[in-house]
Amino acid sequence: MDYIYKQQIKVRDYEVDSQGIVNNANYLHYLEITRHDFCEQAGTSFRAMQEKGLDPVVRKIEIEYLASLTLGETMLSCLRMERKGARFIFVQDIFNATNGTHIVHAVVTVVCLEEGRLSRGDLLASAFSQYL
Amino acid sequence: MDYIYKQQIKVRDYEVDSQGIVNNANYLHYLEITRHDFCEQAGTSFRAMQEKGLDPVVRKIEIEYLASLTLGETMLSCLRMERKGARFIFVQDIFNATNGTHIVHAVVTVVCLEEGRLSRGDLLASAFSQYL
Amino acid sequence: MDYIYKQQIKVRDYEVDSQGIVNNANYLHYLEITRHDFCEQAGTSFRAMQEKGLDPVVRKIEIEYLASLTLGETMLSCLRMERKGARFIFVQDIFNATNGTHIVHAVVTVVCLEEGRLSRGDLLASAFSQYL
Amino acid sequence: MDYIYKQQIKVRDYEVDSQGIVNNANYLHYLEITRHDFCEQAGTSFRAMQEKGLDPVVRKIEIEYLASLTLGETMLSCLRMERKGARFIFVQDIFNATNGTHIVHAVVTVVCLEEGRLSRGDLLASAFSQYL
Repeated sequence: MDYIYKQQIKVRDYEVDSQGIVNNANYLHYLEITRHDFCEQAGTSFRAMQEKGLDPVVRKIEIEYLASLTLGETMLSCLRMERKGARFIFVQDIFNATNGTHIVHAVVTVVCLEEGRLSRGDLLASAFSQYL
Repeated sequence: MDYIYKQQIKVRDYEVDSQGIVNNANYLHYLEITRHDFCEQAGTSFRAMQEKGLDPVVRKIEIEYLASLTLGETMLSCLRMERKGARFIFVQDIFNATNGTHIVHAVVTVVCLEEGRLSRGDLLASAFSQYL
Repeated sequence: MDYIYKQQIKVRDYEVDSQGIVNNANYLHYLEITRHDFCEQAGTSFRAMQEKGLDPVVRKIEIEYLASLTLGETMLSCLRMERKGARFIFVQDIFNATNGTHIVHAVVTVVCLEEGRLSRGDLLASAFSQYL
Repeated sequence: MDYIYKQQIKVRDYEVDSQGIVNNANYLHYLEITRHDFCEQAGTSFRAMQEKGLDPVVRKIEIEYLASLTLGETMLSCLRMERKGARFIFVQDIFNATNGTHIVHAVVTVVCLEEGRLSRGDLLASAFSQYL
């Protein structure tokens, strides 16, 4: 896989539930953190986009839970993206940073609202032009 | 749709993020609450299952975000389920309780570990026999 | 104690951490839910206040953890309030709804910003006049 | 102040609520992360303690919110500790990492359960002997 962005994230103890593993909702947080930090690296930011009236919203998430993470573990969160018309598709994988176990595979579909209406995404595409 | 369980859940103000809408990860919490409360209605509980060495785990979630919820709103969270071999499929829909707007459609695949190993799910199936 | 507002809140399974008890941060959520629902009962709401340029912010919280809550339990969350100049003091107690065990005692100090500056709180006080 | 542990933590976008600032409950998470990461630096961990039947629990938190953090900001979270009999007192301060603004001042009281009963804390004290 040719990921365009990778980052390590350490599990926070409060994210581990009574089953002793990271609760499944927290992975959506990890995926969001990774997309947003990628945006910053790409020279923009969530906040900057909002200030321009540009509002990227998640339309769909498909997430497979392949293995689990627990207390004290660190993940490697990886991302690549492609554009399909007005939709931006983020393919995101999370691995155990220590042993490489594949934890989560997700496909996240984002569309971009401009002034509250669905846009063709050209502004977002230009921000990410070097990655598309 | 013939849902087998419905419940109302009110948005908590802290679940609304800086975009002014419920953050997408919180919907996984709402879906989990609904499955767990359904289990209780079905005469079992998450805790009771864990005590028997039965560990239902989410294997896959497909979630579509069709519209958003915000401060002060209440949702109607609806569920139906079916069994496909070792997998239990929960089809879950969330509507705005006031105006009926369809907010989220999700398909959640759960498998059941028994003593740490993937089971055929017969114990879980017997708990849910009246719904399958 | 003469509480002016009481409500039941059920523990959500994901709020229970790997120690098997509700993580301490979640109690701040319960306290906030109780204050906000009390506001609604008092005829106003967090959202309505924000729309008027009124921004109640928490200045200080003192919280004692006396006992714990776990999976499947329901709490009774109780509130009374008083005004001390520009400060509104919420005294909040959480009890196990089943057996009455005192779980949490908290004193929450709220001040009110108007258009971004600390106000004397007269607008907020008038909203709560029947309780002060 | 002579802090014994400092770390940077970046605000996650989902931690910012509809008021545009980090929701007050999240600071309890930041404080916990800092205590737990300090424990790791001190050669132990939350998980290791739990495995020994040692269960540090928060008994009391006093937290003052002096200023706020928002999207894209990074904090410097600082800690010092002292022992008062069976109680361990963590004094924790959070500053804006960029401009030094004092965001939060907190005093967190922790006691240590051993096999479910309140202990004198000697095991925990020995783990932290170099800091007390």
